Amino acid sequence: METEEEEAKTVSEPVGAEGWAEFGVIGLGVMGANIALNIEEKGTKVAVFNRSYDRTIEFLKSAPSKRFAGAETLSAFVASLASPRAILMMVPAGSAVDETIEGLLPYLRTGDLLIDGGNEFFENTERRAVKLAQQGILYLGMGVSGGETGARHGPSLMPGGKAEAYARAEPVLRKIAAQVDDGPCVTHIGPGGAGHYVKMIHNGIEYGDMQLIAEIYDVLRRVGGLSNDRLAEVFAEWNEGELESYLIEITAKILRRRDDETQGALVDMILDQAKMKGTGSWTVRDAAQRMVPAPTIASAVDARLMSAHRELRLLGASKLAGPIPSLVDSASNSGNAGGAGGAGGANRSPSGACIDDVDALIADARAALYAAKACSYAQGLMLIQAASRDLNWAIDIGEVARIWKGGCIIRAAFLGRIQAAYARKPTLESLLFDADFSQELAARQEGWRRFITLGIASGIPLSASCASLAYYDGVRSARLPANLTQAQRDYFGAHTYARCDRDGVFHTEWSEAS
Amino acid sequence: METEEEEAKTVSEPVGAEGWAEFGVIGLGVMGANIALNIEEKGTKVAVFNRSYDRTIEFLKSAPSKRFAGAETLSAFVASLASPRAILMMVPAGSAVDETIEGLLPYLRTGDLLIDGGNEFFENTERRAVKLAQQGILYLGMGVSGGETGARHGPSLMPGGKAEAYARAEPVLRKIAAQVDDGPCVTHIGPGGAGHYVKMIHNGIEYGDMQLIAEIYDVLRRVGGLSNDRLAEVFAEWNEGELESYLIEITAKILRRRDDETQGALVDMILDQAKMKGTGSWTVRDAAQRMVPAPTIASAVDARLMSAHRELRLLGASKLAGPIPSLVDSASNSGNAGGAGGAGGANRSPSGACIDDVDALIADARAALYAAKACSYAQGLMLIQAASRDLNWAIDIGEVARIWKGGCIIRAAFLGRIQAAYARKPTLESLLFDADFSQELAARQEGWRRFITLGIASGIPLSASCASLAYYDGVRSARLPANLTQAQRDYFGAHTYARCDRDGVFHTEWSEAS
Repeated sequence: METEEEEAKTVSEPVGAEGWAEFGVIGLGVMGANIALNIEEKGTKVAVFNRSYDRTIEFLKSAPSKRFAGAETLSAFVASLASPRAILMMVPAGSAVDETIEGLLPYLRTGDLLIDGGNEFFENTERRAVKLAQQGILYLGMGVSGGETGARHGPSLMPGGKAEAYARAEPVLRKIAAQVDDGPCVTHIGPGGAGHYVKMIHNGIEYGDMQLIAEIYDVLRRVGGLSNDRLAEVFAEWNEGELESYLIEITAKILRRRDDETQGALVDMILDQAKMKGTGSWTVRDAAQRMVPAPTIASAVDARLMSAHRELRLLGASKLAGPIPSLVDSASNSGNAGGAGGAGGANRSPSGACIDDVDALIADARAALYAAKACSYAQGLMLIQAASRDLNWAIDIGEVARIWKGGCIIRAAFLGRIQAAYARKPTLESLLFDADFSQELAARQEGWRRFITLGIASGIPLSASCASLAYYDGVRSARLPANLTQAQRDYFGAHTYARCDRDGVFHTEWSEAS
Repeated sequence: METEEEEAKTVSEPVGAEGWAEFGVIGLGVMGANIALNIEEKGTKVAVFNRSYDRTIEFLKSAPSKRFAGAETLSAFVASLASPRAILMMVPAGSAVDETIEGLLPYLRTGDLLIDGGNEFFENTERRAVKLAQQGILYLGMGVSGGETGARHGPSLMPGGKAEAYARAEPVLRKIAAQVDDGPCVTHIGPGGAGHYVKMIHNGIEYGDMQLIAEIYDVLRRVGGLSNDRLAEVFAEWNEGELESYLIEITAKILRRRDDETQGALVDMILDQAKMKGTGSWTVRDAAQRMVPAPTIASAVDARLMSAHRELRLLGASKLAGPIPSLVDSASNSGNAGGAGGAGGANRSPSGACIDDVDALIADARAALYAAKACSYAQGLMLIQAASRDLNWAIDIGEVARIWKGGCIIRAAFLGRIQAAYARKPTLESLLFDADFSQELAARQEGWRRFITLGIASGIPLSASCASLAYYDGVRSARLPANLTQAQRDYFGAHTYARCDRDGVFHTEWSEAS
């Protein structure tokens, strides 16, 4: 131990010994610092660099006895790395990545490996990989999920790029990734921008999960009259079953948390304006471009946008009429009835939606959440399949599900079931068609419909829940009313149509009929 | 007349007299040919050019006694125009426009005017306008709506660019545009790409309208058991009232049209795969980028995508369970009960949705369509407001509504009401907040909720109808569950949150609570 500390001290001087470090990390923000600590902890000598050297010094001070070397300049940083170098960039996506690469290039040699661990848009990654390949530099675009804690103790890693590049990084990546029953949460996703693409979809799915939970919470609170304590119990209980997941777990914890100032529930004091950083919108734009429907994810993004328009909503609340959310029979509600909607009682909602007691409502909510979540994942996975086909990435969906089982924000027992579904049939057309999932949805669809009906009758906006249900009913529909849409398009724009009974392209002079 | 014909004959030679024509049209496809005929009919001498000269000759033959000159080369075409020239390009959006401009540039002079009348993405238009301004060329990006008939007899025109450019084109544009009670359907939308932006939103709204009609049709057919003849009657009747619009009018006509082959209703023989050309997806991508929720338009685009995935749906129909759409009491249904769902009768849907008879269902459908449509327009207009603010376009929303009253696909009595709303308050935060509209929605929301509930209980995908309702309930919500979303984001990513009770940015060490 003393020996190690001394060694570290030596190299913790502004510039480490030449060729001493096995791995380099650029960018010592929250994610970069924690991932550097993670890498070092697994026995790897790490050189670190930050644009502001003060931050580097601060970081080295906070980890004095470790296998770290800090450098003040990029040339010293690169020199401190053993050849061929492996460098992980943890800098903000976009121009900062380009600038970092430009700064590094004069010091790099053929065979060196660069990894972008930020939330970069996959097309930027593809562009950089091509450019760097021309100069003999290996490049990985790697999604990193798990926030601060994940970065420190085991994230889910989604690296994309050449197999040769992945092979170089693999030993370190396997050590630092989250470990689950069947191995570390890292795999070679595919070439080019495949890793960052899969991370983008991960985030889109995360948006969907969060919005679905928010909608369930809203109905249970405003219509069911559940207190925060009772809600926390419900989510904690759900976390023992088929909904077991990180997001459900932290929801229960959040609902229990007291506010130091007011002694009430902290969640009630938080402003209802959700922010976002862009990956959700990217997913929506990609889906629109790739012609794959992803309505749950799209509506989750829209719901955040709606929440951000708080001034508009405050005006709307005073101008627009709706039903008053009426509490269902709260006799079985063991917590304090709280929230909006006035006094409890056995009121029925105005449109006649019938849920007799809170336990039945909670059971329907659970069914609704699971079913809607499955539809959202089906959308995200179909996007990955489509992109993989479009861009020749040959992504293994089962492997993607496997590496999402640990470390990342959407980690859940559920992902093991998805992994199993794709193990049974790697070319599954839709997650919903796996026999286990289709049976689960069949068992839940009545409760799901009842839950949404109650929310609609009570005036609760259920955009993502409704989008998932419409998706389910759309996929179930051998015939949709798009025949009318095609007739209209042919009527006003001579866009032609196909027929059910024979091949060909047809056009009708519709106005003759009038 | 003879004189005119002779004159035309003279100039219909491959090259017209130098400086003879007052207006030039490039591109003689369906839209270009019809708009050229429209311009000529209003008394303007027109030079035409098409990449393939055969098409030019064909066009001139089809219009032999007209004020047309055709040219085989771009130089001859430009030479045949009086200075300063005014040239309308009706070529496919994208690279064809760039190529046309490149081809024209050597022959143009300072002060000449180029108009792009295609469905161009507004950012491309902005880029070209800037580039051409450097060379002294005036540029307009002009949305043209109305299809073939509109182009020939009066389209809605949405020109954007410098006021000077618009002033040059205005006399001709006012003559060829659709004429409504308060003038021609053309106005100077704003600078730069404003015209093409507004056309994009027009198309997004058109997607929403068409999908809402399709959903209404689907429920009336599959749940209400209405025959095509009865449906045609219903839409024709609606076209006499508050829903009066071109799309409702043609829907009635489409539903009446017989198939020459099978003698059945033609609409039943059309394949249910809706196609699209891109402007809907552009709107979705723009909304995601501009942070304005447009869920009805987004779900309409998604519904087309879902319809296109027909193989997936055919599989899904065999694998996924749902309620069997049960017909409501068809005693009052005067037409033949047809379509899916088996025999008529007074069955209730399995989830207990209660609509007693077909007349009540039709009344609810009418309320649902109107309310959902209003929400969709509110989204589109808010996008225009946001873009106008972002890009300093100073767009007059009331004027936009006015020029949509005639010529275009979404023309409707409804737009006069929107025009009036913005005349009352040009800075209206949302169309829904106008007293007339908020009262109309208040009167319809119960029927709207009943209609959607019935559809959901019957397993009909109602993506756009549900999206509009969630939008309405979202705008009505002084408090959304986004507080929970923000708590989750702060929990896993330290993204911070705002509080309801005081200003500032807050972060909680949530895991302490566990």
